[in-house]
Amino acid sequence: MKIDVCFSPVLYPYYAGNNRIIVVIADIFRATTTICAAFRNGAAGVIPVRTMEEAKVLKDNGYLVGGERNIQKFEFGDFGNSPSEYTEDKVKNKEIVISTTNGTHAIDIAAGCDCLIIGSFSNLSAIAEFCSGAEKDVLVLCAGWKDKFNIEDSLFGGALVDKLSEKGFDINYDAAQTALSMWREAKPDPMKYIERSEHIKRLEAHGLLDVVEYCLTPDTANVLPVYDKTTKKITDKLQEQ
Amino acid sequence: MKIDVCFSPVLYPYYAGNNRIIVVIADIFRATTTICAAFRNGAAGVIPVRTMEEAKVLKDNGYLVGGERNIQKFEFGDFGNSPSEYTEDKVKNKEIVISTTNGTHAIDIAAGCDCLIIGSFSNLSAIAEFCSGAEKDVLVLCAGWKDKFNIEDSLFGGALVDKLSEKGFDINYDAAQTALSMWREAKPDPMKYIERSEHIKRLEAHGLLDVVEYCLTPDTANVLPVYDKTTKKITDKLQEQ
Repeated sequence: MKIDVCFSPVLYPYYAGNNRIIVVIADIFRATTTICAAFRNGAAGVIPVRTMEEAKVLKDNGYLVGGERNIQKFEFGDFGNSPSEYTEDKVKNKEIVISTTNGTHAIDIAAGCDCLIIGSFSNLSAIAEFCSGAEKDVLVLCAGWKDKFNIEDSLFGGALVDKLSEKGFDINYDAAQTALSMWREAKPDPMKYIERSEHIKRLEAHGLLDVVEYCLTPDTANVLPVYDKTTKKITDKLQEQ
Repeated sequence: MKIDVCFSPVLYPYYAGNNRIIVVIADIFRATTTICAAFRNGAAGVIPVRTMEEAKVLKDNGYLVGGERNIQKFEFGDFGNSPSEYTEDKVKNKEIVISTTNGTHAIDIAAGCDCLIIGSFSNLSAIAEFCSGAEKDVLVLCAGWKDKFNIEDSLFGGALVDKLSEKGFDINYDAAQTALSMWREAKPDPMKYIERSEHIKRLEAHGLLDVVEYCLTPDTANVLPVYDKTTKKITDKLQEQ
């Protein structure tokens, strides 16, 4: 088995493969981490939608709605895009609609694949365990920022390459090697490393820096959110077992 | 002024900007380095063409033709894609047609910009000097390998970020930071660093490893190849002065 990293949804068509696992990072700050937090707190499902209009229609049909556009919470939203908002009392046994600047776009791009799972530092070990057990090739698909390369999603790619390298995966691909190198530099102090990223400046400008450390902490949620292309919903496969 | 790095021609539309310098890396192994070597040895011009068919037509019209497809020299070619083939006795005062797997594609993508220059480690300082003097924003456009991220082109991006950082350019962009980090890791021993790349394995399989060290050596050619969108030719602006 091999693992590679695709740094942007735009590059996805060039990273061909079959019968493999796509781990979508959409994004580390914060959609992916938020989805994992919702499942950790007992959410029944997450419905990713691409447009605010779709989110509004579902809100009017009684769904809880979360997400952001350019970091700002929707006016009609029940939640923004920070994991700490998705508390057990609010999300347990509920299905939640989420729409974000980059994240739902990346899910859309890969929606046709055989196995799409949602990755964040929160569920790093759960993902590594699943990929290793599945014995399939893995591609990490980074949402990036408006289709551009970003540091935080790529860094997660490196962390997963590191984990799967220990499990005997082939990691000899340019993007996988570069992501791994980023992670090795970051690992001793991820908070220090991430200071160089553009996203930190955006979060700081919106008073959202408090979420960063949580988003970079591995294994705070033992969940495995899997996207079902038929129902177009994400559910936690570990919760279902 | 700022400098950023675009890791693939496919990502180019997402790195918007005006009145800036695009430094095309197409590719470090070997097209870009080869073009610089040709100019160092007195070539009058380089005509980049996208297809083998265009190259053949120009060959039939008396031009010298070089390049490769998937590392193999054209049957009808005068040169392959290694800088050592473009010796003074063969190229002095000649116009040479070049077509390569990735390189000419990247030039095509950016052909409409205001100022397109060809970059390689061979002319790193000449480029840095020009960019610094021009006082314009700079985008490094990496050809990559068949539109995928590659290590060697991105590494050059990091080397130029390093140089322009010393000249006071703003380098606070995710891709620029990551390329710089790659270069800082590679700088003490670029030959060792590059062993991790996919391209090295391809070159090795074709007996072309001898070219690698030359391609990674800074400042072997004091040339400034600039693409003219009207004539569709590359000429050396330093030679012309």
